[in-house]
Amino acid sequence: MFTGLSAFPLSPVAEESIDEPAFAGLVSRLHLAGVDSIGALGSTGSYAYLSGEQRKRIAELAVDAAEGTPVLVGIGALRTVDVLRHAEDAQNAGASAVLLAPVSYQPLTDDEVYGLYADVTARLSVPLCVYDNPGTTRFTFSDELHGRIAELPNVASVKIPATPEDQGEARARVRNLRRHVPGHVSLGVSGDSAGAGGLLAGCEAWYSVLGGLWPGVCLRITRAAQRGDADEARRLSGLLTPIWTLFGRYGSVRVVAAIADHMGLTGSLNLPRPLRELAGEERTQVEDAVRTVLPAVEN
Amino acid sequence: MFTGLSAFPLSPVAEESIDEPAFAGLVSRLHLAGVDSIGALGSTGSYAYLSGEQRKRIAELAVDAAEGTPVLVGIGALRTVDVLRHAEDAQNAGASAVLLAPVSYQPLTDDEVYGLYADVTARLSVPLCVYDNPGTTRFTFSDELHGRIAELPNVASVKIPATPEDQGEARARVRNLRRHVPGHVSLGVSGDSAGAGGLLAGCEAWYSVLGGLWPGVCLRITRAAQRGDADEARRLSGLLTPIWTLFGRYGSVRVVAAIADHMGLTGSLNLPRPLRELAGEERTQVEDAVRTVLPAVEN
Repeated sequence: MFTGLSAFPLSPVAEESIDEPAFAGLVSRLHLAGVDSIGALGSTGSYAYLSGEQRKRIAELAVDAAEGTPVLVGIGALRTVDVLRHAEDAQNAGASAVLLAPVSYQPLTDDEVYGLYADVTARLSVPLCVYDNPGTTRFTFSDELHGRIAELPNVASVKIPATPEDQGEARARVRNLRRHVPGHVSLGVSGDSAGAGGLLAGCEAWYSVLGGLWPGVCLRITRAAQRGDADEARRLSGLLTPIWTLFGRYGSVRVVAAIADHMGLTGSLNLPRPLRELAGEERTQVEDAVRTVLPAVEN
Repeated sequence: MFTGLSAFPLSPVAEESIDEPAFAGLVSRLHLAGVDSIGALGSTGSYAYLSGEQRKRIAELAVDAAEGTPVLVGIGALRTVDVLRHAEDAQNAGASAVLLAPVSYQPLTDDEVYGLYADVTARLSVPLCVYDNPGTTRFTFSDELHGRIAELPNVASVKIPATPEDQGEARARVRNLRRHVPGHVSLGVSGDSAGAGGLLAGCEAWYSVLGGLWPGVCLRITRAAQRGDADEARRLSGLLTPIWTLFGRYGSVRVVAAIADHMGLTGSLNLPRPLRELAGEERTQVEDAVRTVLPAVEN
């Protein structure tokens, strides 16, 4: 399940509660589109902001609405004891795998992060994807540390940040990491603007934010890259440039939340406070980009 | 209460539970030493790692053991609804004030941080100290944003990161911030190596980690600075240089946890996982520093 397009839907929040019908609808669209896996409670799924009960409920809703498409569930938390509880809940909900980032408040040392993964993987009954996201965790993995963690039981994939835009550098990045990470552990790219480039550089999966909302075009990019059609993968990703630009400017979660509302897939208030929905000129930019891009990528 | 030495004790954690007698003992020492206020559940108090119930309990223990010394309680959390709950619990426990940092997972915008403080201060019945700690929250306040937030009701102090080592630059830093922050809101320095310098540069309070463990010498530094005896404040702070160096190297919470164990004030496992106690050579360095420094500062 750690290959191809892994699509990460928003967890729409209304008045501090989960908008359950909207979330189930988002997941169902992904299943119907034929994504390879669904990533519930990723960063876009606001895992860090939700209570244990809400996370449990989202995992259950996702597995149910996914109708057999494998579901990966985010279990990250600041404290190890909470991570273990979320892992237990995700497994009980029927998750096919879990996703764990080294969420931090005090900046963590390499040994602390290794200890976290050792403590968690020792207690898992499903595979784990290591979530390397320095933009939210502010922890930077060395390739050596990735290698040490990848040797732990149950580690099945590593979700890495955006690969470099230059294709030679992207290939070198994946090749260098692969020297440390054994072959049975897949490498997946995130940072959506790097999806096509990462897959073409040798990543086996694309862990995608936009894939959680626009699975069609993201699947076409993924399939093109998988069959080695670099031109088509790049052409399609290029059409999405206005979206990638807004992701960089406002953060992908805020942009995806605005698009989901614009498309009528969620209510207009859909982010957990203190996060705020884009409004005014920012919102207009998102709507303009959608109007420009959507007709082009549907061709 | 937002002047002088505000001492921030460790929240000792053993087997994922609070070591309640040890915590009460740490707070009691601070009260007996005569600190101006006690900061429970600061970063050193591991607020970000504890459950709501544990935080409520710590607030109650702190107020009880402080025997009238004002207690400031940290209420930060990733989600606004949790911050509001912690504020309510802290107030019910008898906290004299609350401390709030813009804890983040998704990097926050200025408007989101302002919105957080607006939402929280509107519901408070005690004063609030704004906690500016980019090292843990990764949010950087502009002076303009500090000014906007300081105008909100119930804002009574701003806890700023270390002031520059150069005294001229430190004075300029405090002067520039003061241009934006009204006079009824105190400015307090943190980053312990900057305690003496920050007070001498015009800060009215020192929010101190070491003050939570060694209140005697930190009070002597504070009182020297308050009476304008720059030489004595600097001399005493200089004697603590080996400790400040270790704070920088390993993070103050890990060093203070090691010292607390070394002094027999807590058990040997006293940090919440994934944080780990210093061991081996790192621990030896701490013990050597304590042996060097403690006799000197007690003179």
